[in-house]
Amino acid sequence: MSPSFSTMLVRLRERRPLIHHITNDVVTHITANATLAAGASPIMAKALEEVEEVARQVDGLVLNIGTLTPAQVEAMKAAGKAARGEGIPIVLDPVGYGFTKLRTQATHELLAQVKPSVIRGNQGEIGLLAGGKGAVKGVEGKGEDPREMDRLTVELARREKAVVAMTGPEDRISDGQRLVVLRRGHPAMGAITGSGCMATAVVASWVAAFPDDLLWATVGALAAFSLAGEKAAAHSRGQGSFTAELLDALAALTPEELVPLEAEIHERSL
Amino acid sequence: MSPSFSTMLVRLRERRPLIHHITNDVVTHITANATLAAGASPIMAKALEEVEEVARQVDGLVLNIGTLTPAQVEAMKAAGKAARGEGIPIVLDPVGYGFTKLRTQATHELLAQVKPSVIRGNQGEIGLLAGGKGAVKGVEGKGEDPREMDRLTVELARREKAVVAMTGPEDRISDGQRLVVLRRGHPAMGAITGSGCMATAVVASWVAAFPDDLLWATVGALAAFSLAGEKAAAHSRGQGSFTAELLDALAALTPEELVPLEAEIHERSL
Amino acid sequence: MSPSFSTMLVRLRERRPLIHHITNDVVTHITANATLAAGASPIMAKALEEVEEVARQVDGLVLNIGTLTPAQVEAMKAAGKAARGEGIPIVLDPVGYGFTKLRTQATHELLAQVKPSVIRGNQGEIGLLAGGKGAVKGVEGKGEDPREMDRLTVELARREKAVVAMTGPEDRISDGQRLVVLRRGHPAMGAITGSGCMATAVVASWVAAFPDDLLWATVGALAAFSLAGEKAAAHSRGQGSFTAELLDALAALTPEELVPLEAEIHERSL
Repeated sequence: MSPSFSTMLVRLRERRPLIHHITNDVVTHITANATLAAGASPIMAKALEEVEEVARQVDGLVLNIGTLTPAQVEAMKAAGKAARGEGIPIVLDPVGYGFTKLRTQATHELLAQVKPSVIRGNQGEIGLLAGGKGAVKGVEGKGEDPREMDRLTVELARREKAVVAMTGPEDRISDGQRLVVLRRGHPAMGAITGSGCMATAVVASWVAAFPDDLLWATVGALAAFSLAGEKAAAHSRGQGSFTAELLDALAALTPEELVPLEAEIHERSL
Repeated sequence: MSPSFSTMLVRLRERRPLIHHITNDVVTHITANATLAAGASPIMAKALEEVEEVARQVDGLVLNIGTLTPAQVEAMKAAGKAARGEGIPIVLDPVGYGFTKLRTQATHELLAQVKPSVIRGNQGEIGLLAGGKGAVKGVEGKGEDPREMDRLTVELARREKAVVAMTGPEDRISDGQRLVVLRRGHPAMGAITGSGCMATAVVASWVAAFPDDLLWATVGALAAFSLAGEKAAAHSRGQGSFTAELLDALAALTPEELVPLEAEIHERSL
Repeated sequence: MSPSFSTMLVRLRERRPLIHHITNDVVTHITANATLAAGASPIMAKALEEVEEVARQVDGLVLNIGTLTPAQVEAMKAAGKAARGEGIPIVLDPVGYGFTKLRTQATHELLAQVKPSVIRGNQGEIGLLAGGKGAVKGVEGKGEDPREMDRLTVELARREKAVVAMTGPEDRISDGQRLVVLRRGHPAMGAITGSGCMATAVVASWVAAFPDDLLWATVGALAAFSLAGEKAAAHSRGQGSFTAELLDALAALTPEELVPLEAEIHERSL
């Protein structure tokens, strides 16, 4: 039985956590807006000269490597260590992990030095990160075998001692002991740029508000975001408008609307 | 009695001033669009190697410190001095002033070395900049005492010999001798990211067109922007769509619609 | 007689080419979305440490100098040479060519060292690049003489051994041997920021899918983009919403809708 997402949403909006984003150039604006729509407040800061100071004053930190530079890696490490030192939840989004050496190496350094609380990525990123190249080719090539994806999600969570969220047509969330599979959302979410990064921003908003329940905060965030995606898609005018409609729906979500999802989401103990 | 905002809007659109923005990563796109919607043209340029050359060819300059780096501070100083040398109006937006040493120190350096024509910030930023930490805590803690905010706005204007705009539920604009309070706009403007930065872009568009009347150009800009916010909110579909609706309304504003505001806005001599 | 744009659109969407963008801060998000709406996939990467690796794995490369820095010039050269070595089409967008020394010099270096497959710019940029200052002043001053613009487009294509697209109220596309003039689109496209950059992203998507027919791929891209602009303008709610509506229309374009354009577009042999 899941906790009450509806109650969590009410509390999140009351607490209005402040989220520091060190993120990619493509999604700076929409993830700031996604943070607001989720019920939190964003602050973007990237200079090595200020990121530690910022990270210490916030409730959550997002590290998104989508347009990485070596200087940004240093800023992420500094901010991450500062946040870690204060017990502030950190969400890592390893965009394009495996595509270049810079991204792959930076991800490994961030995992080792920053120890993120939550890692959110798509099937390819999480699969590759969990199991090496062969495993991911398997994930992509074998028609996305659900059991294999379950295994990879849990394995990465155990290895990194973090909550791992592998999102896609189905979302898998695990803390290494438990696994939750969420079958919600809409394919339209995959047709816009940055929906994964927006999901990360929403996850950061929830875990910042509920740092003592990272697993369920992550599930609640993805449940809320998926429901917003379904609602937006129901009356969408097209691919270009969908981003704004998704934000509209996320901000307009009522606690009551989350109640039906509470009943349908179950954890599996492992 | 205020000047004719409606006539100013007509002239602004005829003059179509070119505005150079050195701004933050979150709002680059929407402030470029806000500049267009206001009736001006934007050019974004950030490299130290070209900012002086750009600043000398434009009609107005925006310096927005929302995602500051030390390199950007240098570019802002160089562009600011070049613009100052040509008599081109400069608008400073001290985003997050007081939140980090980098931002606080950069703001002081820009004030001293660039001498902006207009400073636009929210109540916290302007209050802190005007009166130090205690004063701002007062602003936030004491239920935003209107007289205290009047005093802080005027004080900063006098000290920096600039027009100061403290925007929020009420906008206060002062050149140190006169104070105008504008009670317009809509709370929806506070729920999106970058509305303050958009206001700055609109202010820059107006002061670039009317460099000899900085106070009233700033008031006219905020009147136009606030009215656009009200109109957008009246038929808004939600928080995500609101940014585009605000731009729609700003671009569609007719000179006639500004006439009623001319009658309701008065300056107070100090 | 033009090739079948409708067939090309079907194939483009099947091939779903991957496009690497090194672009300006203003349009990162909308050109990523424009790439998706065109039927391709975007990847943004800018660090010198990874751009060559990225450029070798993609189907097309965009170099857009809209907010240039010297570091970005180096990244563009490295990525461009890597792409060139693999025979991957490169599209150069010389935003603001002629406005500063940095942009002018970088454009010349990129032309010499990277040898782009396609150069897309507005009348001022292409005119200046083709014919020097006098010529462009002529373009702007003489009421945009169509023959002069034809000549400048063809001349630049011959000199740079590239397809050149001079876009505006009319689009001119030439490979030096042939010239195509496209009279489509809508003035609303000129009132938003980044429509030229979006056009470049669409061109890159098409030439990545059809690297053996750069001229007609460029024409097809601009025909599709112009038609999307017309459709978006027909039911637009305003300047702020238009960007999203343009993306909506581009993504929703059916191959059948391109058929009428096939009949009206003709090449002129030179």
